[in-house]
Amino acid sequence: MVKLIALYKTPENPGEFDQHYADVHTPLVKKWPGLRKLEVAKIYGAPIGEPKHSLIAEMYFDDQDSLQKALASTEGKAAARDVMQFAANLITMFYAEVKET
Amino acid sequence: MVKLIALYKTPENPGEFDQHYADVHTPLVKKWPGLRKLEVAKIYGAPIGEPKHSLIAEMYFDDQDSLQKALASTEGKAAARDVMQFAANLITMFYAEVKET
Repeated sequence: MVKLIALYKTPENPGEFDQHYADVHTPLVKKWPGLRKLEVAKIYGAPIGEPKHSLIAEMYFDDQDSLQKALASTEGKAAARDVMQFAANLITMFYAEVKET
Repeated sequence: MVKLIALYKTPENPGEFDQHYADVHTPLVKKWPGLRKLEVAKIYGAPIGEPKHSLIAEMYFDDQDSLQKALASTEGKAAARDVMQFAANLITMFYAEVKET
């Protein structure tokens, strides 16, 4: 199992960001072919200091090939276009292989 | 459901780091009271550029109270002491509430 992780810095307008994320972006991501699970979590604190990030989303796939196909699909490109419009300067993305659960 | 997220920057000695993480740190975390799930994933790339991080670990709890109790427990303190010895300059931690799965 692999996952695409999207980590978002705290936006300037959290209310607007959250609404767009829930109402527009999440439905686009849910259409991705091969998506096995989507886990969205709201960052609300840290053991030390104040976190600079406010949201983490994880998109799970069977393998790297499925993940790449999803990103290259029409649905993947639609979500990428959307994220570049509302969070281009906030998002960091990683690919990760789940080792232990 | 809430989770403690530990995001690790790529260490200077990945082999040594991975061995310590798997053989020493993970067994300490698995002893935490109230831990519902541990998911460890190896970061291996990114859609754009090279990632600066190499590992993400997520520790799931029923709620923030359970998470705080785990961190304050003997087992939580043992894991914290360990992480400060092998990854103090690599780790970033967040608390997050799972919104959607």
